[in-house]
Amino acid sequence: MKKYAFGVDIGGTTVKMGLFNMNGEVLEVWEIPTVTEDKGSRILPDIAKSIRGKITEKNLSDDEIAGVGIGAPGAVDGEGVVHQAVNLGWTRFNLKEELHSMVKLPVKAGNDANVAALGEAWRGGGKGHDNMLLVTLGTGVGGGIINEGKILSGSTGSGGEIGHIHLVDGEPDECGCGNHGCFEQYASATGAVRIGRRVLAASQKESVLRGKDFSCKDIFDAAKAGDALAVEIAKQYGEYLGKGLAIVASVINPEIIVLGGGVSRCGDMLFDLLKPSFEKYVFSGCRDAKFALAKLGNDAGIYGAAKMVIE
Amino acid sequence: MKKYAFGVDIGGTTVKMGLFNMNGEVLEVWEIPTVTEDKGSRILPDIAKSIRGKITEKNLSDDEIAGVGIGAPGAVDGEGVVHQAVNLGWTRFNLKEELHSMVKLPVKAGNDANVAALGEAWRGGGKGHDNMLLVTLGTGVGGGIINEGKILSGSTGSGGEIGHIHLVDGEPDECGCGNHGCFEQYASATGAVRIGRRVLAASQKESVLRGKDFSCKDIFDAAKAGDALAVEIAKQYGEYLGKGLAIVASVINPEIIVLGGGVSRCGDMLFDLLKPSFEKYVFSGCRDAKFALAKLGNDAGIYGAAKMVIE
Repeated sequence: MKKYAFGVDIGGTTVKMGLFNMNGEVLEVWEIPTVTEDKGSRILPDIAKSIRGKITEKNLSDDEIAGVGIGAPGAVDGEGVVHQAVNLGWTRFNLKEELHSMVKLPVKAGNDANVAALGEAWRGGGKGHDNMLLVTLGTGVGGGIINEGKILSGSTGSGGEIGHIHLVDGEPDECGCGNHGCFEQYASATGAVRIGRRVLAASQKESVLRGKDFSCKDIFDAAKAGDALAVEIAKQYGEYLGKGLAIVASVINPEIIVLGGGVSRCGDMLFDLLKPSFEKYVFSGCRDAKFALAKLGNDAGIYGAAKMVIE
Repeated sequence: MKKYAFGVDIGGTTVKMGLFNMNGEVLEVWEIPTVTEDKGSRILPDIAKSIRGKITEKNLSDDEIAGVGIGAPGAVDGEGVVHQAVNLGWTRFNLKEELHSMVKLPVKAGNDANVAALGEAWRGGGKGHDNMLLVTLGTGVGGGIINEGKILSGSTGSGGEIGHIHLVDGEPDECGCGNHGCFEQYASATGAVRIGRRVLAASQKESVLRGKDFSCKDIFDAAKAGDALAVEIAKQYGEYLGKGLAIVASVINPEIIVLGGGVSRCGDMLFDLLKPSFEKYVFSGCRDAKFALAKLGNDAGIYGAAKMVIE
């Protein structure tokens, strides 16, 4: 009889870990440093040691443990094979099997954004929905697709990496990926600031944003306070976001779209901004998608990781 | 021990049916008319009667039969519920359960394009690949997504209906769906003719296409024969097709993209036309997608339907 599961979320500087019961309640959360030296060769041994230590500390039996789920920042396919994880120094290897050989428990592995999506579908903003799209609007735009309750990994672990779908023709600025006109160039926090600079440059109107090095949060705060140019920037941001989400929704027909990341902290206003554009561009058969905000914040990864080994 | 499976593909005028063995070899194919009168109420009884008749004729035992898979032209979700099927006169009902109550065998149901995709993944152009995108380039553009060997139905059965993703801003013509700038408006056979008319109107050059009511096939035939304007039309067609496929591939990261439908009869030339644009727009993590032509033609539906009940 299984009673516990471990969820592990590898970040660039720390590895977050959680011990869960089978109802998805987190019993304990802790962190260890991510040691990226020596091509990240210490990361998995450190994780295995920490989990084995927790099992000893809590006096648990291996028979009670469903397994260890793990999310990593890189392309991880449905078999748990990492195709690349640049920030950790990892090249191609079987993450699932390697960690299993160290920790002596069942292991499942996935891309961190996909694993976070599973967490939000299980216990967060998408709870109760089996077909979900999670979109994280931060420095970049990440995403994860949950299809019939499971992660859509894609053939090489890039499923749900929607930040780089082509959205706009004729964009002069280059995206981090080398292309021009990617969704991320408009719908990320960085994208909002970029749109903001363009709107300010094209107008003579007064704005509290003028003459300062404003952030995405500054834009939405100013828009809420009624600053006319900030309202215009927020409106354009919503148009791009709604259009991109409409394209993705027309491919996968999600029941719910959950928005997370820093930009989502501006709250329900985001839905008002994106919906006119979403409804304009989405295929009629996919128009009924619900919208919600992510709820688990930085814990989504450990929840989703644990869920991978709790079926 | 299961030995046989039935695959059923409901079309607007005929219902195609196949008896398969468990290796996916088709033993017999036959058709009955699709009676759409009385809101399509006779369609399922006719199918059940035909299958029961075949079982009697062949002297099969129900114990030997894995079940009946069925594809229908409409939105069918993962539970076998039809959300709508306009051409058959059907409104919302549980196709899977209703047919099961008549035929007394296990039933699975799906959208016809999605079921055809499963057929191509099983025994056709995508054979050997678990993550596949099928795109049918005909009067419209249809599609089906196979994820880890299974159909991605989406929440209301519109998963993989990629013909209506937004592709081009500022399109004056209206798509059949009411939107402007849908993928289908460029990548269908009809779309190729539309592009052709625009190219001809914008040029004074001679072309064998001038002054006639040309088809998509005429364009590609003329392009193969070296007609300069036809080559230009084919090139533009390939740019749109490659761009749309790049967007979809960047969402789901397929291992292989299989092209079917009338336009695909122009053959490998299609890959040469679409690849420069595909590679320009696709996210780097999804660039390695293979391309192939569909192989099963109009039989893809019965193959995929049978596969649904053979696990």
